[in-house]
Amino acid sequence: MSAVVGIVMGSDSDLATMQAAATICQEFGIEYEMRVVSAHRTPALMAEYGQTAHERGLKVIIAGAGGAAHLPGMLAAYTPLPVIGVPVPIGHLQGVDALMSIVQMPGGVPVATVAIGQAKNAGLLAMQILATADAALQAKLIEYKQTMADESQAKNERLQASAKNIEQ
Amino acid sequence: MSAVVGIVMGSDSDLATMQAAATICQEFGIEYEMRVVSAHRTPALMAEYGQTAHERGLKVIIAGAGGAAHLPGMLAAYTPLPVIGVPVPIGHLQGVDALMSIVQMPGGVPVATVAIGQAKNAGLLAMQILATADAALQAKLIEYKQTMADESQAKNERLQASAKNIEQ
Amino acid sequence: MSAVVGIVMGSDSDLATMQAAATICQEFGIEYEMRVVSAHRTPALMAEYGQTAHERGLKVIIAGAGGAAHLPGMLAAYTPLPVIGVPVPIGHLQGVDALMSIVQMPGGVPVATVAIGQAKNAGLLAMQILATADAALQAKLIEYKQTMADESQAKNERLQASAKNIEQ
Amino acid sequence: MSAVVGIVMGSDSDLATMQAAATICQEFGIEYEMRVVSAHRTPALMAEYGQTAHERGLKVIIAGAGGAAHLPGMLAAYTPLPVIGVPVPIGHLQGVDALMSIVQMPGGVPVATVAIGQAKNAGLLAMQILATADAALQAKLIEYKQTMADESQAKNERLQASAKNIEQ
Amino acid sequence: MSAVVGIVMGSDSDLATMQAAATICQEFGIEYEMRVVSAHRTPALMAEYGQTAHERGLKVIIAGAGGAAHLPGMLAAYTPLPVIGVPVPIGHLQGVDALMSIVQMPGGVPVATVAIGQAKNAGLLAMQILATADAALQAKLIEYKQTMADESQAKNERLQASAKNIEQ
Amino acid sequence: MSAVVGIVMGSDSDLATMQAAATICQEFGIEYEMRVVSAHRTPALMAEYGQTAHERGLKVIIAGAGGAAHLPGMLAAYTPLPVIGVPVPIGHLQGVDALMSIVQMPGGVPVATVAIGQAKNAGLLAMQILATADAALQAKLIEYKQTMADESQAKNERLQASAKNIEQ
Amino acid sequence: MSAVVGIVMGSDSDLATMQAAATICQEFGIEYEMRVVSAHRTPALMAEYGQTAHERGLKVIIAGAGGAAHLPGMLAAYTPLPVIGVPVPIGHLQGVDALMSIVQMPGGVPVATVAIGQAKNAGLLAMQILATADAALQAKLIEYKQTMADESQAKNERLQASAKNIEQ
Amino acid sequence: MSAVVGIVMGSDSDLATMQAAATICQEFGIEYEMRVVSAHRTPALMAEYGQTAHERGLKVIIAGAGGAAHLPGMLAAYTPLPVIGVPVPIGHLQGVDALMSIVQMPGGVPVATVAIGQAKNAGLLAMQILATADAALQAKLIEYKQTMADESQAKNERLQASAKNIEQ
Repeated sequence: MSAVVGIVMGSDSDLATMQAAATICQEFGIEYEMRVVSAHRTPALMAEYGQTAHERGLKVIIAGAGGAAHLPGMLAAYTPLPVIGVPVPIGHLQGVDALMSIVQMPGGVPVATVAIGQAKNAGLLAMQILATADAALQAKLIEYKQTMADESQAKNERLQASAKNIEQ
Repeated sequence: MSAVVGIVMGSDSDLATMQAAATICQEFGIEYEMRVVSAHRTPALMAEYGQTAHERGLKVIIAGAGGAAHLPGMLAAYTPLPVIGVPVPIGHLQGVDALMSIVQMPGGVPVATVAIGQAKNAGLLAMQILATADAALQAKLIEYKQTMADESQAKNERLQASAKNIEQ
Repeated sequence: MSAVVGIVMGSDSDLATMQAAATICQEFGIEYEMRVVSAHRTPALMAEYGQTAHERGLKVIIAGAGGAAHLPGMLAAYTPLPVIGVPVPIGHLQGVDALMSIVQMPGGVPVATVAIGQAKNAGLLAMQILATADAALQAKLIEYKQTMADESQAKNERLQASAKNIEQ
Repeated sequence: MSAVVGIVMGSDSDLATMQAAATICQEFGIEYEMRVVSAHRTPALMAEYGQTAHERGLKVIIAGAGGAAHLPGMLAAYTPLPVIGVPVPIGHLQGVDALMSIVQMPGGVPVATVAIGQAKNAGLLAMQILATADAALQAKLIEYKQTMADESQAKNERLQASAKNIEQ
Repeated sequence: MSAVVGIVMGSDSDLATMQAAATICQEFGIEYEMRVVSAHRTPALMAEYGQTAHERGLKVIIAGAGGAAHLPGMLAAYTPLPVIGVPVPIGHLQGVDALMSIVQMPGGVPVATVAIGQAKNAGLLAMQILATADAALQAKLIEYKQTMADESQAKNERLQASAKNIEQ
Repeated sequence: MSAVVGIVMGSDSDLATMQAAATICQEFGIEYEMRVVSAHRTPALMAEYGQTAHERGLKVIIAGAGGAAHLPGMLAAYTPLPVIGVPVPIGHLQGVDALMSIVQMPGGVPVATVAIGQAKNAGLLAMQILATADAALQAKLIEYKQTMADESQAKNERLQASAKNIEQ
Repeated sequence: MSAVVGIVMGSDSDLATMQAAATICQEFGIEYEMRVVSAHRTPALMAEYGQTAHERGLKVIIAGAGGAAHLPGMLAAYTPLPVIGVPVPIGHLQGVDALMSIVQMPGGVPVATVAIGQAKNAGLLAMQILATADAALQAKLIEYKQTMADESQAKNERLQASAKNIEQ
Repeated sequence: MSAVVGIVMGSDSDLATMQAAATICQEFGIEYEMRVVSAHRTPALMAEYGQTAHERGLKVIIAGAGGAAHLPGMLAAYTPLPVIGVPVPIGHLQGVDALMSIVQMPGGVPVATVAIGQAKNAGLLAMQILATADAALQAKLIEYKQTMADESQAKNERLQASAKNIEQ
């Protein structure tokens, strides 16, 4: 089966951040592809990737970039698919420059922006998008939420147990 | 037919910003509903809205709020649906506080954030999400892009025409 | 005797920051409880915690969270009790996102915000709040201020002593 | 009966912002006093106000100031009472300077900071603090929350009614 | 004679800002062209403009855009020519988002960024660039500096004259 | 001879930053005193220090503090002497909070603010202030400038020497 | 008698801000001069002004500029006199750029920076500097402080009077 | 052959940042010179450097500085040549102060600003400027772009190869 999620990054140095999006796809059993495509260094490839993504069967694009981060917005310029943008925290401004460059898109060309460095949430958002037409995937997302809740409660119980020990 | 997009705002004063999302739904022929649901003033209603949204047939939620904007993130906590967040520029910080409160969600609970005040893009993003399983809608989005391109080129032609007049 | 101060955090990773609030309660002999309650991962538990806090005998809630920090404001939405918010400095923005998400609450639902990472001050503020109806506790706070002043003067004396040595 | 809430501001030009705190006190039937006391222009009066506040029967101090806003923190240095700080948005920085000057207090001397310009919330926070020892006041706060919820729902109904008219 | 400076903007609403660059070209007698070319709405035209600019005889490109301003950086991705970027102050962030999106370019693809809204300086920078191989143009620039100095001194004389009148 | 420069800091943890001001006084042969005086922990001592400084023979006060840094401004409220403020970079905001709290003083009560962490410049500014009535001190300042210039030129010569080596 | 305070601004458009410094000089009976001297447009005049200021009898320089505000720092590079910098709030960044450009001077070359737009405080700071060697001027400054205190107390009395009327 | 690019920095501590500009000149075979010239410590040398640069055969100046970075703008005040400014990230503000001080130049005196710490791009921009009159150099720049594209594609191939290994 071919990829339905495209995970694209401007440089392989972004992989440490972007891997988390791939991991989510794996956990939910969704086919994905990963690409280094640079808006600034390979703009023609970037354009081609954006223009053909929906024809190749992709449903969602996740794009991560840092600094003057143009990759998510430029892919959004070329594709009718939803594009999820991940601000990658490189350089001296902790990702604020990337956040501004990704989220402040003009009317007509949205990019669905997640938190600085939060490729995991980009992956989950892709799952939620696909789940709008896939009841089984939506069920997995509900289960995922339940697991998070259970883990949070387990942390709470451990905290209370250790707090009681302290107080005794 | 019942609504597939829920447009929710924290106060009716956000309507001036959020109306643009509804207008996009109308232009693309997608059923939507609009609600004032406040995370801070009607938290129980907000919880119920989030918990039942996918059961009532909604596919995407668009939520707008200003200041310490908790509505998008809290709906995302309750629903398995994709939630699109619109930072509404109220108060003294031009929407930067709302942007921070919406985009910086922790791992596990994404909010697809658009630009400050950009409810139009929230609407378009909802269309793109629905179009992942609706070829006709995707075709409309491709057409929409073409119209934007045509309008941009028309602006270019007018600019060049007027520039030539100036230069003569 | 049951807890009168509830110290709540979104994740056990916030404990390193929030412990200082518990330490203050211990120093002043005020019963407290600590909980991991996540606005985003266990929203129903969070709602229940907020709704029942005053019925269970709590007088003040201290809530710490990072990033898009919704826990303090959401607890404030549910409880009539004063809620003290501690912006926890996680992630790439040094707690500025948490500060914005906690302090910029809309009219009707205040959160008493302290400095980024300052759970100690959250504890002291809780003591001051309880002391408005507890003269003995107020006396301890006055004594606490005196101790701080004494320690500051002792630092001054040490500085002057060492400065004299340098100058000789 | 004497005042239990002291509302203090650095200049009478802050009155337009701070009046909302007084209005809350009036609505909840709590005695208050209002004072212009400047940390920078009348520091001795400010010190005296802070030192004697709890002796005069005050339970909570609300202090508003703009720019390098030292009034809330300096009152907190002198008084064992809880001090609520309101960043007043004057000058060229929209109150960000006042927010930094009020919220970032060092360990030992907390100021309960509310949103920029949100004196209404300062008043409500004072009510919540007093209500920790006043069941009747707490009941009024619960009622106040209910009224806010009702008003929010009424807004929702009006929005839905008008939306239906538009859609027909 | 054909244009050597290309002045490009993302939308005709940027013309009020960008006109100043054209005015400088006119003052210095340098041929220019003005275009509306949108990175987001007409990406293919933008790519073509960038790819062919140096072949058509252009020597410098001035590009202005606001918000998530990708136009200068994307033209720089396509062209070997120097690209001057003008952050246009639209929207809620006073051009800070545009500045971040334009100036923070990654290694390999520079954009020569000027102040927010300073298209006049973009024009002058283009003149300075062309003057590196045009002694007559450099002479005009030196003369331009002298005129600025003269005007500044004239302002000084008027100020001193009026100050003397006040003091008498 | 008694001290003419008072170097005051909110805590002995500020000494690492503030020592540089003392070193300048030593280099220029100006008597100084160092004190830990806290606006928040020993406000009465701070007030007394400010009120009596000019009577004790001090000519200039240098005050350093971090976070919600009130010490410089509060000393300025009490003293007719010029107060130089040094924002100390503690906590999570790199001294931006201290800078805002020190520089944004209201009309009537100036604080001469230097760069974040720049106690050396605070010392030099104190020397410049004293030199307005001390020709010998002014001569030393002119000499100091010359030494800086010489050191800068020496760096330049070393750079050029090493650059030539690289280029060969 | 010749001027002892030099008030310098980058452009006559800064006069509206800088006039307040002159007014303070007039109120305190100190001779001053006002000049338009631009670091960027008349750098040689600026250099000459800085180099000769102390020889012409000036004791303090007040310099105001906006944007990339280099005038105060460059004058400080040339003169041994204390230089007071006033960030003038022009352009799109409300004076934050000017503040950064003025206050963040490197070691060796201080600029005494006041609040954005606060030329009045620059004037007062100049008076305080001159008063370090002028007892009569210091007495006037003490009187000035007393007048501010009296005016503040008068505001307080008016507020209390009007508040009592409201409460009756 | 004499230098055509002048690389100037305020201190030799900036060399670690600025070396990258020299490396680009070497790669493209363009003669350059490197100087430590400080606007604040050697203002007269700086003025002379700026005034004589074009007479000595320089075509472009690259200037790097940190903090209140006046060197690029002051050189631009003196020279008719294009000046490229590099904000050097020193001190507590990550280069934001330097960026503001360099990019926000007033009308009439542009500085071509690159990203914080991006001296490599300053070098490339200088090459692009020289290439406007040097077809061979432009050809090298086109080749340089192709090399970047090839390297980016190689990274993409390695990523895809390793991703396939993971997925197997």
